[in-house]
Amino acid sequence: MAIITLTTDLGLKDSYVGSVKGAILKELPSVSIVDISHDIKKFDITEAAFVLKTVFHDFPEGSIHIIGIKTEATLKTPHVVVLFKNHYFIGADNGIFSLIFDILPEKVVELSISQDTDILTFPTKDVFVKAACHIARGGSMEVIGKPVSSLRKSEDLRSFSEGPNVLKGFVAYIDSYENIITNISKQQFYDFGKGRNFTIFFRRAEYSISSISKSYNDVPSGERLAIFSASGFLEIAMNSANASGIFGIHIRDVIRIEFYD
Amino acid sequence: MAIITLTTDLGLKDSYVGSVKGAILKELPSVSIVDISHDIKKFDITEAAFVLKTVFHDFPEGSIHIIGIKTEATLKTPHVVVLFKNHYFIGADNGIFSLIFDILPEKVVELSISQDTDILTFPTKDVFVKAACHIARGGSMEVIGKPVSSLRKSEDLRSFSEGPNVLKGFVAYIDSYENIITNISKQQFYDFGKGRNFTIFFRRAEYSISSISKSYNDVPSGERLAIFSASGFLEIAMNSANASGIFGIHIRDVIRIEFYD
Amino acid sequence: MAIITLTTDLGLKDSYVGSVKGAILKELPSVSIVDISHDIKKFDITEAAFVLKTVFHDFPEGSIHIIGIKTEATLKTPHVVVLFKNHYFIGADNGIFSLIFDILPEKVVELSISQDTDILTFPTKDVFVKAACHIARGGSMEVIGKPVSSLRKSEDLRSFSEGPNVLKGFVAYIDSYENIITNISKQQFYDFGKGRNFTIFFRRAEYSISSISKSYNDVPSGERLAIFSASGFLEIAMNSANASGIFGIHIRDVIRIEFYD
Repeated sequence: MAIITLTTDLGLKDSYVGSVKGAILKELPSVSIVDISHDIKKFDITEAAFVLKTVFHDFPEGSIHIIGIKTEATLKTPHVVVLFKNHYFIGADNGIFSLIFDILPEKVVELSISQDTDILTFPTKDVFVKAACHIARGGSMEVIGKPVSSLRKSEDLRSFSEGPNVLKGFVAYIDSYENIITNISKQQFYDFGKGRNFTIFFRRAEYSISSISKSYNDVPSGERLAIFSASGFLEIAMNSANASGIFGIHIRDVIRIEFYD
Repeated sequence: MAIITLTTDLGLKDSYVGSVKGAILKELPSVSIVDISHDIKKFDITEAAFVLKTVFHDFPEGSIHIIGIKTEATLKTPHVVVLFKNHYFIGADNGIFSLIFDILPEKVVELSISQDTDILTFPTKDVFVKAACHIARGGSMEVIGKPVSSLRKSEDLRSFSEGPNVLKGFVAYIDSYENIITNISKQQFYDFGKGRNFTIFFRRAEYSISSISKSYNDVPSGERLAIFSASGFLEIAMNSANASGIFGIHIRDVIRIEFYD
Repeated sequence: MAIITLTTDLGLKDSYVGSVKGAILKELPSVSIVDISHDIKKFDITEAAFVLKTVFHDFPEGSIHIIGIKTEATLKTPHVVVLFKNHYFIGADNGIFSLIFDILPEKVVELSISQDTDILTFPTKDVFVKAACHIARGGSMEVIGKPVSSLRKSEDLRSFSEGPNVLKGFVAYIDSYENIITNISKQQFYDFGKGRNFTIFFRRAEYSISSISKSYNDVPSGERLAIFSASGFLEIAMNSANASGIFGIHIRDVIRIEFYD
């Protein structure tokens, strides 16, 4: 049974998500439709990209991921299907793909599907569903689009080093527990740190943390800790408390790590 | 595989939606249950009707739509199953059906299903699920109810003309993007306008709009536009901004269109 | 088709619920995954227990219920699978089970599943999903854990009598309609009351209620009533209005019933 996931900013109150699911079931009665999130901040492709980047590899290969955010096609932002690590991603090339993938995808086609209606405001239902169902039925990408060689680049905050001892990153996401998830990956942390002692600084000097915990319960309830998140990024959190609110930390704030020989 | 959709004001936090789904799966292990919305404003049948009206035709014919809002049966509001354009709608006849359908439905039966419990507060689970599963198994409407010839009428704001040049409508729904959706349909707009020039007025004279856009991106980000919504109604919106909040527009506000020869 | 339900405090915005569902579909392509609630108050096992207690018996026997709240394993709170009335419950033994079950469960095993990752913060995905899929495939509990004889006890507010005429209970849950659900069961009410007249008191003397309604519509819109909830507990509500807000009632407030000979 094919799997189609949905990541959108459509919200759960209106009829839109229902319309998308109805349209899928009209084409494909037997399919697993999985909601990733419909509560992405309106038009925020950075947030949507982070959510998708951290979730897609939990799905089986061959899964089809519809991205319903900033979906209108323009000359600069055509509709595309992207094949990456044996997952299919369908959306508008508005810059989101360069934020999801750290390496070049295997294949990209620009969609040449024609809509059944002249209403151009709901391509998630009128275009992406058609493409997704075509792929789900085993159809090839080339039948519904023409290959293109590049995707639009988005400006992204990247972590960087200052000399051999300082690694700087940014807050990439704050989850509903108010855990603070940075863009510093576990591998990057260990490659740069090489086992040295370190201190993580954020916002104020007195908020520093000098060890990595394995679980939230490693520290007493209400105390701060650093941990690698389920998705493999450095996370600053509190055991059973709201780190971002308590520390006053926001998306894109700087996180600085000093390593000592 | 039968499709049962759910449109309710039950909310997603409590156990109620889970109970409804459990009850369906107890009767019918293999079925597609699709959430339309559980965040309808409590007891607001007008909002529920708008959501259902705009979504049901996106589902395959034969789909069964459970309406879980103002569900208690009284002598005046019996439980019914309605067949309309080959879709089944199950709910209390509290006036909602006259808001969903623009023409008379094919068939209506008043349900004569007896509950398994003497708790009468949850007919969505204890009555509607039974009726839905009966229909989903291919059962006929007549077996579970007796035919009735009419449905309760609700007062509804209807668009109307003032002379040959002015068409007036009302705000029917505001979606989570704060797009303002009116009750003026595309067909009505073109039938009345006959290709003439026009100006749409709402709230203040300076908010007028004199053209119909094809997509939100037809105007610069943050500018207002008129467009036909995915559901075919005249919509006033802003590209990537919150029209209803910025213009101070609410449900039931008047929208006035002047046509010029 | 096996049924796996999810009751968590993960929220619907982040990627976490999607990750759990992806992990299930990776192991078991054909399964019914049902969301009970993901909006349980963070870390609130009492609320999660109430939701599960009132919903699980609506699902078919053999259903598997994943409990994703306070999930980290410690020496004192191991991961367990519990068999109760032919339903399987999987979670951390943090005290929640004693709040769900009123009698001893049939069987309990402490899980000895090893994770694929060294990230210990997401057992819902990395441990509970494995256990659930094992059970869903027909595997036995003993293969994935060792039998234990007891579960951790949680302090719970219990209703109690004061002499032969007074029954006291507590507010156990307030639902999204602001109905006030107590921990006094229907059976307890009738066993203690033996058909006598009664008055229910809550917060202020003038808020008393002296009869049990069968449906919300038994009283005029906006009036208070007492009723047995869909889950069989004494509930104080208002017809089409928000009882808890209007009465200023909170979780754990006392409800006192006086019976008269």
